[in-house]
Amino acid sequence: MANQNPHQNDVVLSSRIRLARNYQDIPFPTMMNDVWAAESVRRATDAMASMDDADAYRLLRLSDEAPVDRQALVERHLVSRDLIRRADIAAALIRQDGRVSIMVNEEDHLRIQTLMPGDQLETAAALARSVDDRFERAVQYAFDEQLGYLTTCPTNTGSGMRASVMLHLPALTMAGQMGAVNQGVAKLGLTIRGLYGEGSEAQGSLYQVSNQITLGRTEQEIVETIGAVCKQLTDLERRHRDALKERDAAGLEDQLMRSVGIFAYARRIDSKEFMQRWSDVRLASALGLVDLPLEELDALIYEAQPACIIQKAGKEITGQQRDQARAEMTRAVAGVRG
Amino acid sequence: MANQNPHQNDVVLSSRIRLARNYQDIPFPTMMNDVWAAESVRRATDAMASMDDADAYRLLRLSDEAPVDRQALVERHLVSRDLIRRADIAAALIRQDGRVSIMVNEEDHLRIQTLMPGDQLETAAALARSVDDRFERAVQYAFDEQLGYLTTCPTNTGSGMRASVMLHLPALTMAGQMGAVNQGVAKLGLTIRGLYGEGSEAQGSLYQVSNQITLGRTEQEIVETIGAVCKQLTDLERRHRDALKERDAAGLEDQLMRSVGIFAYARRIDSKEFMQRWSDVRLASALGLVDLPLEELDALIYEAQPACIIQKAGKEITGQQRDQARAEMTRAVAGVRG
Repeated sequence: MANQNPHQNDVVLSSRIRLARNYQDIPFPTMMNDVWAAESVRRATDAMASMDDADAYRLLRLSDEAPVDRQALVERHLVSRDLIRRADIAAALIRQDGRVSIMVNEEDHLRIQTLMPGDQLETAAALARSVDDRFERAVQYAFDEQLGYLTTCPTNTGSGMRASVMLHLPALTMAGQMGAVNQGVAKLGLTIRGLYGEGSEAQGSLYQVSNQITLGRTEQEIVETIGAVCKQLTDLERRHRDALKERDAAGLEDQLMRSVGIFAYARRIDSKEFMQRWSDVRLASALGLVDLPLEELDALIYEAQPACIIQKAGKEITGQQRDQARAEMTRAVAGVRG
Repeated sequence: MANQNPHQNDVVLSSRIRLARNYQDIPFPTMMNDVWAAESVRRATDAMASMDDADAYRLLRLSDEAPVDRQALVERHLVSRDLIRRADIAAALIRQDGRVSIMVNEEDHLRIQTLMPGDQLETAAALARSVDDRFERAVQYAFDEQLGYLTTCPTNTGSGMRASVMLHLPALTMAGQMGAVNQGVAKLGLTIRGLYGEGSEAQGSLYQVSNQITLGRTEQEIVETIGAVCKQLTDLERRHRDALKERDAAGLEDQLMRSVGIFAYARRIDSKEFMQRWSDVRLASALGLVDLPLEELDALIYEAQPACIIQKAGKEITGQQRDQARAEMTRAVAGVRG
């Protein structure tokens, strides 16, 4: 088994940093008129022009995007749900590789987000800092010596940083441990949510761990805390995987491989079943039962979401056609064409 | 789609002929002592020695066989359940290819059985006649000019022939048509039973159609009647398969291919699920959705039965180990090793 788990990717899907920033001399988005909103976008694009890799970014004005394309951006975690709620004034600067996206006129003027595969919170933070530094040279941020970066919502004031990791915790979920995990994490001032943030259920045994508040904590403290919890949960999940195998390896293998079989052969998969099967297939792959690249499986979880499927189809399609398209994707990844 | 359906094997699994015969001067098995039973076996082996292909047969004395091996013979349809109930006095002469088996001291002294793949009742009947002719030259049968061949049970008297075909009728079953089919068949004096005869449920949508009585009907009439019903049911099943495809081709394909996926990837399959999945997989193959040889699937249905699995394992194994061995077999046939 040559699974080296680069960046703990047997458990950790991705690491994300988000910095909330505002211009000093423009009313915050909640108070902003259209003129200020346009000015905010203009300043962001000007600042972007000074970046070394400016060519790698594209500017999306949300008002130019069709609803399905906006939704697809959310599904791919390139922009937030909040951003598309403000589609009339919002924009995003998105780097080709999806690792950097700068939301403009979300809750704050600027939300600099970086996204890295696996457990790479430090790298994501360094990348966010470098983008932030370039912007800071081009624009005047709202900053208070005592409070730090000023934000629309007081919970973001200070470093303005939210750090999060996306974890795949199927063994902890099967063992009914997620209630206890939730409680433990809450005591540290952190939250656990599902794939699509607040209110989204933990489908596919996917959990995002992030800090709730930023005020009074340095960026380094936030990254370290999330990193430490990420490591603990990774270890705990691995121990529970070992325990599952010890208790009934054949039963576990049967369950997981049946889902691989469904991925490889089904002709229709609805989104709910998809998430359940996906979790099994990812665990099968992480355990070395099948040789399916984790990166492909992780990309699939976004591409198999409804809006992404419709976007790819290039036209409005029925729910049943979506289920068929989803099954075509799982077959392509599971590598058998029947 | 290069499916030529040789011998209508998209619907017809096998054709079987059984001739009931008794020696003129030995009490019928119900009245027979051990000495006569031994004499009955001796005469059968002597008669066999005169056959051109005598070397292709082996003599099994049921009393020498372990219970699991006896059961495996039943599962493979090489001997009847009734024969192993009389294991103390019973024997069987079985041709290597399994197409001919002569049971000795079952309900009658001799039961000559021939078994051919697909719709080949005429061929099976001709083969049975040729064996019968050779035996008739070597032994004196109990025969009455008026009644024909005399048998223990009066329903078999006359030609002593039972003809049967094994049909796979998944579309008729899904359409809820089997009640009506049963009634229609009963009106012709025929019966429909499951894979393992009287009382066995129609698992896997497999149905045996056979004549109930032989008295007053010639061999030719019996073969023709069963042949005609076989053809009718085959046509009816095909029409229902077409109707299923017309109504929801994608839904049907999804159902069938999921079972192919389970066959290809599961690590444990119990016998009940096996029969359900097998039926789907066979239909998928008959419809050309997958390229799995029907002969291999048809052999699997016998080899995946409990006693056959234990026999192959060469030792007593648990139910769970049987389920694992069964899944190994389905994986070997479905052609993917995960």
